[in-house]
Amino acid sequence: MEKVTVHVNRPYDVVIGEEILNTCGAYLRDYSVSGKVAVITDENVAPLYLEKVKKGLQDAGYGVESMAIPAGEQSKTMSTLQEILSFLADKQFGREDTVVALGGGVVGDISGFAAGIYMRGIAYVQIPTTLLAAVDSSVGGKTAVDLPEGKNLAGLFVHPKLVITDICCFRTLPKEVLRQGMAEVIKTAVLSGEELFSTLETEDFQKESIREKVVKECVTYKAKVVEADFTEKGERKLLNLGHTPAHAIEKASGYEIPHGDAVALGLRLITAGACGTGLLEEETGRRIIGLINEENFPEESGYTIEELARAAAYDKKRQGDAVTMILPHGIGDCRLQKMSFVEVFELYKNAKRWLNES
Amino acid sequence: MEKVTVHVNRPYDVVIGEEILNTCGAYLRDYSVSGKVAVITDENVAPLYLEKVKKGLQDAGYGVESMAIPAGEQSKTMSTLQEILSFLADKQFGREDTVVALGGGVVGDISGFAAGIYMRGIAYVQIPTTLLAAVDSSVGGKTAVDLPEGKNLAGLFVHPKLVITDICCFRTLPKEVLRQGMAEVIKTAVLSGEELFSTLETEDFQKESIREKVVKECVTYKAKVVEADFTEKGERKLLNLGHTPAHAIEKASGYEIPHGDAVALGLRLITAGACGTGLLEEETGRRIIGLINEENFPEESGYTIEELARAAAYDKKRQGDAVTMILPHGIGDCRLQKMSFVEVFELYKNAKRWLNES
Repeated sequence: MEKVTVHVNRPYDVVIGEEILNTCGAYLRDYSVSGKVAVITDENVAPLYLEKVKKGLQDAGYGVESMAIPAGEQSKTMSTLQEILSFLADKQFGREDTVVALGGGVVGDISGFAAGIYMRGIAYVQIPTTLLAAVDSSVGGKTAVDLPEGKNLAGLFVHPKLVITDICCFRTLPKEVLRQGMAEVIKTAVLSGEELFSTLETEDFQKESIREKVVKECVTYKAKVVEADFTEKGERKLLNLGHTPAHAIEKASGYEIPHGDAVALGLRLITAGACGTGLLEEETGRRIIGLINEENFPEESGYTIEELARAAAYDKKRQGDAVTMILPHGIGDCRLQKMSFVEVFELYKNAKRWLNES
Repeated sequence: MEKVTVHVNRPYDVVIGEEILNTCGAYLRDYSVSGKVAVITDENVAPLYLEKVKKGLQDAGYGVESMAIPAGEQSKTMSTLQEILSFLADKQFGREDTVVALGGGVVGDISGFAAGIYMRGIAYVQIPTTLLAAVDSSVGGKTAVDLPEGKNLAGLFVHPKLVITDICCFRTLPKEVLRQGMAEVIKTAVLSGEELFSTLETEDFQKESIREKVVKECVTYKAKVVEADFTEKGERKLLNLGHTPAHAIEKASGYEIPHGDAVALGLRLITAGACGTGLLEEETGRRIIGLINEENFPEESGYTIEELARAAAYDKKRQGDAVTMILPHGIGDCRLQKMSFVEVFELYKNAKRWLNES
């Protein structure tokens, strides 16, 4: 079992292990989680893990209620949020009680948000069941729902009291879902440095001991960045490596292309752009793209580089006329650079050229 | 003009003055409020003050959008919240932009909540137009909406960037609405001490200079309590003086009896109870009840003391089997006391007896 402490205003631990769901209640006791517990999950995850988690909690003496929302992004709405809040009120949850989010990113985002506003904030514990949620949304305190006008437009920065990651949950993930998490893992490896990067190149990610180690390193890296910059004004922007083209691709596809696939496409484009403009050694670029290729991500988004550059100019992370792009200068050496629309377009053109030539 | 600084994690000022709405934009500039501004108001307040505020903001160079929600508690819902969020998104509000809440408690509560979650939190400025909002909801950082299951069940603790109170707004308040604020003013006087209390006894509250002074003293007192106890675990409970019976009365009436009237009824009951059990000198009790009587509050709730004691046992502020009651031992000397249902019932019985006898 591994443990990473996230040192934010109220520090919390991410516990990572194998077959730890059935003792989850004992972890909650260790971390002084009080009151009764509402497990919020989705209809895909419920048949797989809900009973195990409920039993784990009841074994430790917790009163447990549970609610399953429909699976998928279409649940991430104000109306599902209200259903969760009404569920908590209906079950007479008070300020000393706790929400447990059991599931992937959607369940974590909406349950964390609900806990953050119910009675102006009660505790929550996250049990991520996907690789993506384990490495990405379980650290950083971002919770949200979508509005009809756009994704993640309403939410809160709020931290869980504890995160329990049982990597055995990844066994039941369909390949395409696991891959969505791998995109963030590869992104993190490019950001964090040779150690994680070469682990991915040389070790077998099918092995659970390797998964445990990789998840731990991703969480450790993300925690370090978030600790330095909680509300995303500076360094935390690095975590958006590959995300400017990724957001453009997701949006253009009406979110038909999943986030991880879009991030992999974005990472490929940015890496090629950095090689094509001489910022990144070609050999290093080929290593990054090599890792992406191993995971069978789509290689083409279906959108022109002009479309993607134009979308970048409308990205919500723009400041005035400039977009802050994150460019790899080496493994473990990515840097922020403000670029105009024309410069982004040039970068993408160079990326395309480099990809065709190499 | 008066100014009170509220020393919370991000300190902010409450500016109190006469005829300051038309220069509100200048205050926003002084306090470095950035971006464009969305004024959220209600359909009662809009015809009275919206144009003045918009002009005040535009004169200072702000781009202004505005939205009026229906007046009254029935607007304090998740669905109106979503409408405000969608309005902000539709008008392309970003992280650097600002919400201005122009109105009473409902507008302040829902607009502050919307600002607190839009894009995970943008700035907001409060312009309270009722006495109740000026002395009560503009300090303390409480924002909320109601759920079908109960009042204020979803919300946030979040502070405004600035509060601008133009006491001239109180001129247009119907007498019964002004009275709702007076209940909180009298409550604050009992809590804070002789200075404010004797001001209320001896000065004419129709005078705007007195209103300015009284609002300033109420805000100063509440700020001091909130600073000491931001998330309401200890001392801040004192602010609930009179509120345990008040909540019971409001709830029993289906919220037909307004909050201030209920607080006045509650304060009368608690004061009489304290006299009847020998905690408070009878002369002091008569002074408190004298102030309440001057405002023409209802003298009877229409509910039996047994009904009110029973409701206290179900109050959301209960801890286990005990209710924390706040009892006046003197002007400026109120104390928390945990009581069982039986003890609350005894207190109310003593109150009734004392009121009948005196």
